[in-house]
Amino acid sequence: MKNSKYILSVALFATSLLLSNCQPQTQPEGQENPQAELDIEDTKVIKQLFDEALTTRETYQLLDHLCNQIGTRLSGSEGAAQAVDWTEKVMSDYGFDKVYKQDLFVPNWKRGDKEVAKILGSQDELTVLALGMSVATPEEGLTAPVVQVQGLEDVKEMGREAIEGKIVFYNRPTDQRLIRTGAAYGGAVDQRVTGPAVAAQYGAVAVVIRSVGTAYDDVPHTGTTLYMDSIPKIPAAALGFQSADRLAKALEQNPDTQLFLKMNCQTLEDAPSHNVIGELTGTEFPDQIITIGGHLDSWDVGQGAHDDGAGCMQSIQVLRLFQKLGIQPKHTIRAVMFMNEENGTRGGKKYAELAEKNNEQHLIALESDAGAFTPRGFGVTAEDSTLTKFQSWLPHFDQNTIGYIKKGGGGVDIGPLHQTLGTPTIGFMPDSQRMFDVHHSANDVFSSVHPRELELGTASMAGFIYLIDKYGL
Amino acid sequence: MKNSKYILSVALFATSLLLSNCQPQTQPEGQENPQAELDIEDTKVIKQLFDEALTTRETYQLLDHLCNQIGTRLSGSEGAAQAVDWTEKVMSDYGFDKVYKQDLFVPNWKRGDKEVAKILGSQDELTVLALGMSVATPEEGLTAPVVQVQGLEDVKEMGREAIEGKIVFYNRPTDQRLIRTGAAYGGAVDQRVTGPAVAAQYGAVAVVIRSVGTAYDDVPHTGTTLYMDSIPKIPAAALGFQSADRLAKALEQNPDTQLFLKMNCQTLEDAPSHNVIGELTGTEFPDQIITIGGHLDSWDVGQGAHDDGAGCMQSIQVLRLFQKLGIQPKHTIRAVMFMNEENGTRGGKKYAELAEKNNEQHLIALESDAGAFTPRGFGVTAEDSTLTKFQSWLPHFDQNTIGYIKKGGGGVDIGPLHQTLGTPTIGFMPDSQRMFDVHHSANDVFSSVHPRELELGTASMAGFIYLIDKYGL
Repeated sequence: MKNSKYILSVALFATSLLLSNCQPQTQPEGQENPQAELDIEDTKVIKQLFDEALTTRETYQLLDHLCNQIGTRLSGSEGAAQAVDWTEKVMSDYGFDKVYKQDLFVPNWKRGDKEVAKILGSQDELTVLALGMSVATPEEGLTAPVVQVQGLEDVKEMGREAIEGKIVFYNRPTDQRLIRTGAAYGGAVDQRVTGPAVAAQYGAVAVVIRSVGTAYDDVPHTGTTLYMDSIPKIPAAALGFQSADRLAKALEQNPDTQLFLKMNCQTLEDAPSHNVIGELTGTEFPDQIITIGGHLDSWDVGQGAHDDGAGCMQSIQVLRLFQKLGIQPKHTIRAVMFMNEENGTRGGKKYAELAEKNNEQHLIALESDAGAFTPRGFGVTAEDSTLTKFQSWLPHFDQNTIGYIKKGGGGVDIGPLHQTLGTPTIGFMPDSQRMFDVHHSANDVFSSVHPRELELGTASMAGFIYLIDKYGL
Repeated sequence: MKNSKYILSVALFATSLLLSNCQPQTQPEGQENPQAELDIEDTKVIKQLFDEALTTRETYQLLDHLCNQIGTRLSGSEGAAQAVDWTEKVMSDYGFDKVYKQDLFVPNWKRGDKEVAKILGSQDELTVLALGMSVATPEEGLTAPVVQVQGLEDVKEMGREAIEGKIVFYNRPTDQRLIRTGAAYGGAVDQRVTGPAVAAQYGAVAVVIRSVGTAYDDVPHTGTTLYMDSIPKIPAAALGFQSADRLAKALEQNPDTQLFLKMNCQTLEDAPSHNVIGELTGTEFPDQIITIGGHLDSWDVGQGAHDDGAGCMQSIQVLRLFQKLGIQPKHTIRAVMFMNEENGTRGGKKYAELAEKNNEQHLIALESDAGAFTPRGFGVTAEDSTLTKFQSWLPHFDQNTIGYIKKGGGGVDIGPLHQTLGTPTIGFMPDSQRMFDVHHSANDVFSSVHPRELELGTASMAGFIYLIDKYGL
């Protein structure tokens, strides 16, 4: 009895194992998008691209070097210069048909010493990062009462009487309800981008903001703030989420709470820098260019792993995968490491300027600047007919990689090309859940990148570009 | 000049910001699946479910308690008993209509002391975990030459002469090329599940396997092995990936390499345990049951966070979300914490047995046992007409949550219900890239769970069950 029951139990257990979610034997490998019939040869090539990326993990190896050997790459920094030299060398060593740089000048902002933010009369030191391009406080720091607001409108409504001489504290949280965290980020970032300029209009002496992001830790997130020429520039900084909560609580207990803020950041003269470009020359249409890019610069905290070392290494690897598999593109395909996305977009503008000046023909441009996370889809800014054509290719992709191709998408660096030449643009859209936990913060490091997720991004981009090159728009 | 150029530059930069992937102003919130028109009221309810889950994060809070206050929950362990009591209390405190347990007996395997695996004559101690249900080595350990194989077929081909008296080392890696890592896992796991029994048939004295998983670290992954009654039971253990590589290298350098293995695991008498069930009673069809479940037991390393604390807490929260939003289901909805998925499926079998005995009517059953990661889709084992109906609901979901509803899916614990009563089954399918890095290992801990990803799973399940309850199959 015992024996036969046990054997039955084993058999049932084995059967139930086969029924689980994780069993491949009963299911085809992967989950194909259910649609039209397509050239099976293309599906094969795209599978090869995925296989190669997932097994060699060359994107991951390059990103490791960029993050751990070079590190942060703020425009004008030593790291940015090293990254320019190194990516040029990497692409030269791969033997791409052309590798070259575009010269430009970039803003040259320096954070200076570690910033200090303290609630007066308290031992509580808040975590803080100066916003990019912020001016310094006076050398000895600055102390002022704090007025908490939920947004720009509050400042305008409260007016000069309430704001003058104060530190304005923008404390509206990033909305956790939105599924695409990029949308949540976009809904909160006005506090950072224009909050300081608006507060200055009403006489504020400084601004602190609740970091824009989705985490609940105490790591502050930096990012550019934009001053206006006609208005005084005031120091501006981001607090960690928990620090923002502590400041809010202090204000609740004592509305006269004062904050001490000290930072000695400065903006030097514009510095020389470069976009770095690698090309595979097209066999049929060498004068028609497909751009794939990310931005090589990063903020000066963390390692710029997701933002946007990943996009740069992926762009190089798209060409590398073509090369390895012997795919000779019909159009010229460029991997572009754009400089200075974070605080000026000078690289993107220079690229567009030269494209126009040199009468270049640009078929389309794709940017990866939304993180190294597992792919979800592509967003496309192009004619409806192009969008429809692209969508017909979905069955080539496992639904767990590219699940949709939607209308609308691009990137900061390829925006100027779109504006100047009308070039259609594509934005790679990875899963967004983790991006704004780390974005612009000390947590944007290589160890937070998952090798398979990163490589699935590379292969998705390569597969999509392969189809565009072969079939056009 | 400078001023006007700068203002232009600011304007361009602001414009380019608006063009980036991350900007919500130019795009609708989220990305809807583009399909048929559906009841807008349902879309509203589903949005509320997502809003509530993402803002209150109650699944995450519960999982925190389960992982950090209770910990591992192997069948028969103190942790499993505590988890039974605690989940019963949680559901009672929520005031679900009925909360009760189902009694059963479970296998009672104990790992014993930390296992030892050493290459003889080397200082290199390999990382190792006994496979679940393995027998012990002799008390003083066991030393034998090692024969490396790539799979079960190798053992059969090599035959008794090559295998007898040896430790068989199954070293076939998990295939990194497969996009669904569950498929890769399924393709390698035979070495663990039946490898030891097959090796024993040919006279092997023990088995070590390369861990089944996708990581490249040195953390071993355990999991059940199945012995056969007619064949001697031999000790079996999993090596960390790097340890497996080191052993392979040692064998390459010296084919006579011997391995020392010591473990004192044992299987005690079956122990009493329970499934734990919470119910919301149906208003129209109280006798028709919708089951939502995960398994409460886990392996005895890590914290059983993804496997499968997440699925249990999500199941409870589906009922909780209904309760909070005042959704009174038409059918009776059960959250079931199944016991003993990992090494016996006794909970799933008991559930099916009682369902049959009590003449219960089961409409459908959904299991979440594939990790707390960002949702991708559902797999459905049901009539084609049901599948088509379910697929028509896709537009209710943001494509960054449920992107597909595919044919085929279920779970180990609801498999017996399907077999016994023919109940249709659904498997929740989160993104699989990270699951088999941590699965059955010391790395399956709460800190590897992302709160938003977990809650998106809860809300996706709740939304889908809401529609099934309302519209049927």
